[in-house]
Amino acid sequence: MTNSKPYVVGIDMGGTNTVFGIVDARGLVVASNSIKTRKHAKFEDYINELCTELNRLITDNNLVDKIYGIGVGAPNANYFTGMIEDGVNLPWPTPIPFAKMLSEKMGVPVAITNDANAAAIGEMTYGAARGLKDFIMITLGTGVGSGIIINGQLVYGHDGFAGELGHMIVKRNNGRLCACGRSGCLETYCSATGVARTAREYLELTDTPSLLRDIPSDEITSKDVYDAAVNGDKLANDVFTFTGTVLGEALADFTVFSAPEAFILFGGLAKAGDLLLKPVREAMEKNMLSIWKGKVKVILSELKEADAAVLGASALGWEAKPVATPEVIATPTAVEITK
Amino acid sequence: MTNSKPYVVGIDMGGTNTVFGIVDARGLVVASNSIKTRKHAKFEDYINELCTELNRLITDNNLVDKIYGIGVGAPNANYFTGMIEDGVNLPWPTPIPFAKMLSEKMGVPVAITNDANAAAIGEMTYGAARGLKDFIMITLGTGVGSGIIINGQLVYGHDGFAGELGHMIVKRNNGRLCACGRSGCLETYCSATGVARTAREYLELTDTPSLLRDIPSDEITSKDVYDAAVNGDKLANDVFTFTGTVLGEALADFTVFSAPEAFILFGGLAKAGDLLLKPVREAMEKNMLSIWKGKVKVILSELKEADAAVLGASALGWEAKPVATPEVIATPTAVEITK
Repeated sequence: MTNSKPYVVGIDMGGTNTVFGIVDARGLVVASNSIKTRKHAKFEDYINELCTELNRLITDNNLVDKIYGIGVGAPNANYFTGMIEDGVNLPWPTPIPFAKMLSEKMGVPVAITNDANAAAIGEMTYGAARGLKDFIMITLGTGVGSGIIINGQLVYGHDGFAGELGHMIVKRNNGRLCACGRSGCLETYCSATGVARTAREYLELTDTPSLLRDIPSDEITSKDVYDAAVNGDKLANDVFTFTGTVLGEALADFTVFSAPEAFILFGGLAKAGDLLLKPVREAMEKNMLSIWKGKVKVILSELKEADAAVLGASALGWEAKPVATPEVIATPTAVEITK
Repeated sequence: MTNSKPYVVGIDMGGTNTVFGIVDARGLVVASNSIKTRKHAKFEDYINELCTELNRLITDNNLVDKIYGIGVGAPNANYFTGMIEDGVNLPWPTPIPFAKMLSEKMGVPVAITNDANAAAIGEMTYGAARGLKDFIMITLGTGVGSGIIINGQLVYGHDGFAGELGHMIVKRNNGRLCACGRSGCLETYCSATGVARTAREYLELTDTPSLLRDIPSDEITSKDVYDAAVNGDKLANDVFTFTGTVLGEALADFTVFSAPEAFILFGGLAKAGDLLLKPVREAMEKNMLSIWKGKVKVILSELKEADAAVLGASALGWEAKPVATPEVIATPTAVEITK
């Protein structure tokens, strides 16, 4: 049986841009485009523009009736409910029944989840985790996110929100204040923001000469720290050693939970490569329970950064099921996917 | 189709005793017995005695050919390999191919896992976790063990050893030395041994009067601390508050991983009831990421203690599959289990 709908759509809804693309079963992004996420005061207007542009992209590429499903990565998106839940920095009132609205307008099944989960599914389908059944994706961006795969399946937990490893508390006393309202969360140390924060602390607390002293303290970014480190700056290198050590200690702790075969690092900070990987691996091994010493890999994502978010979301499109309500327009028959 | 083999056997191999029982599909222990684990210098002699006694129990109860499978809970037992792996306090050389040997001798499929995992499966099949698809069993005994259930399935991880939450590091600096060789593991604080250790520390570091000062310091047990606490001893109560707080903080951290519906506490220390539960729940809520505040239950096991280990192991017997080797004697046909 051949697949009469051999394409999926991936949508990555970010705080600034919403990027979307049509992806084939081998993970090739056939076509893509984007709109501004915050242009419209009403969510209805946003989703209408999104559907208009998406339909245009589909028509322009002669793929009408060839779309199997749509996968969406969005902040605080819940796979179980199809909703974008409360507590997220978007210009519209939440919760938003995103999956249902999009499915009704586009006439195909829609599945949504948060961006880190989408990245994990993308990595398993098209990236460094192909063939792995047990791994943990750690996304190192403005915050720290995670997508946990156990026995080939994404862990959603009881309520759809599992895998918030960025909010594991790694420093119980006098930890850094986190955006979540608590203190000492992993993401206050190991995100891009955390790296800049560490650099500012080191600059204040020491007299070590550093290229970073030429930059106004509150303007320092993780990219500045990276550039300085690559240029041999000792303080900047110390910042990466500290960051990697905290992350490596956390990875050793995560291992006792699900005994993954690998951790896959993704996101802006992962581009620091060995600067980060070396201390991560060292600290992880040093802190690892003996049965897992030398057995858990730490690798970088293999998804092309420009495509990664859309690819990750699109992979979820293969799993999308029709929403079980009378309003649903399309209920495509099950087809074999040749991946 | 009726089930022609409506019974399973559960075997709980402990460091001192090996308890085994025949269990029906509703979780009733029909008959049970035990042998000494350490009586024989050779493993072959141990397993021969075990099979002799087990066959006697089966025959005496007229259940020959009525046994569907055997489940075993044993230290360092690996579900994937069927082996008791290295690094365990038993009188025989490891690894031991326990599942294969037992299956060959008994003529029925055998599945093995560690005791905490067996307890989790038992709780899901017969106990407080009936109907729960996402929960974490925490066993508070001499050490701290755990069995993690996600989406109705036990988490074995890449290598079969997942769920070692007792070895999550909860105190990164100056933590207590753990039997695993590292420092600061949860089980150094929240096991029965940890409670006694905390009591000794409190007695040394303070002048607080306490009933426990009548007991030689190195003879204090968690039971002594419990008895003193129940009698209104302030120091003993402080020990339970501390223990519960450390455990509650850890449960909040575990929640970010798999978003469980409940934690189920099992084992000797869980018998402290509210003395432990109250500080556990308080600390968990205080440290919980806001999306899970007030949503995760902490409950005590409902398995009768005398039966729990055997019941837990027996539940695994329903999942046992014939070992895929030519030596296997029996390959029962698949039957419907009416549970």
